[in-house]
Amino acid sequence: MAMSTEPLTAERILVATEEVLRRYGPAKATVVDVARQLGVSHGSVYRHFRTKAALREAVTERWLNRSTDLLRGIAARQDLESGVVLRLWLSELFQAKMHKAGDDPELFQTYEVLLRENSSVVEEHIAELVGQLTTIIRFGLERGEFTVPYESPAVSARAVFDATGRFHDPVYAAEWSRRSIVDDFGAVVDLLLQGLRKR
Amino acid sequence: MAMSTEPLTAERILVATEEVLRRYGPAKATVVDVARQLGVSHGSVYRHFRTKAALREAVTERWLNRSTDLLRGIAARQDLESGVVLRLWLSELFQAKMHKAGDDPELFQTYEVLLRENSSVVEEHIAELVGQLTTIIRFGLERGEFTVPYESPAVSARAVFDATGRFHDPVYAAEWSRRSIVDDFGAVVDLLLQGLRKR
Repeated sequence: MAMSTEPLTAERILVATEEVLRRYGPAKATVVDVARQLGVSHGSVYRHFRTKAALREAVTERWLNRSTDLLRGIAARQDLESGVVLRLWLSELFQAKMHKAGDDPELFQTYEVLLRENSSVVEEHIAELVGQLTTIIRFGLERGEFTVPYESPAVSARAVFDATGRFHDPVYAAEWSRRSIVDDFGAVVDLLLQGLRKR
Repeated sequence: MAMSTEPLTAERILVATEEVLRRYGPAKATVVDVARQLGVSHGSVYRHFRTKAALREAVTERWLNRSTDLLRGIAARQDLESGVVLRLWLSELFQAKMHKAGDDPELFQTYEVLLRENSSVVEEHIAELVGQLTTIIRFGLERGEFTVPYESPAVSARAVFDATGRFHDPVYAAEWSRRSIVDDFGAVVDLLLQGLRKR
């Protein structure tokens, strides 16, 4: 328990929630545990998150969005050829997922449970990522660097996201420690880029 | 129990094993159940399959290979443009998997358990499928219809297999009943073909 005179913010509650989830696991962690961790009453926590479900949803969203800002920065780059930007973006996504899975496997498993509980949060996250891919592809089309089989760049963005699922979908986390995985990733990205690039 | 005067073949034992697995589930099904189903002694079954593990492995292989012959026939077609053959092959694989998952969900779940037990059988099956894709791509290169980013057609075959995982890997079976899945499949295949086809 850590008494503190800092104001109780949503962010502090979410940090404490992650710590509690890590310690007790997603099945046992309660709002009372989170309040105890912060040295406040559980009423104070409920003033920020009205239900336990809302708190779990918010902590899941925070976990998913941790790498989104960095990726958005890559998607917005206009100083590089679009194919290079796309490769950078896909590599960064894969790296971020690999680190999440490898650096703290217990926390990763905890979030696996939360992701199943919060499918709408997951869907929003995927929509955000596909939106970033759409930005990259649209810009590539505008500059005449890319060509796509459909008029809508969003359809091709979704196709790129689906085609690289093996390298970002957590169901494949167990395969990310295989030695061959980086070559497999490179082969898929090269084939997709060969498709997207105007020849 | 079905007494029979037919000779006891490996195939008859495998048919009975599938029936027993369907009825009792993979956790409870025994070799004695299989023998009873056939009206023979369990010793007769062991004369064909030396262990329970060997029997489960063989029934898993049979399940996986059920659509392999049809796919091999498609991969060997030389009367069509290679891109058309590749699309046919990927569609047939997706359809076969969807049918397995949708027509008999209980049996599909049973095999999910067996697949986890028999990872070497699964790896051989994947090697067979990637081999068929390699045949298609190699022929497309020979005829000047395809171009690939690497010298080895096998690397691109593996990339095509990985990039379409969402449409054949059983971990995604729950998504195959979504209305959008056929469009998603089409978008990925179109993008891959745009990459492979010589322009």
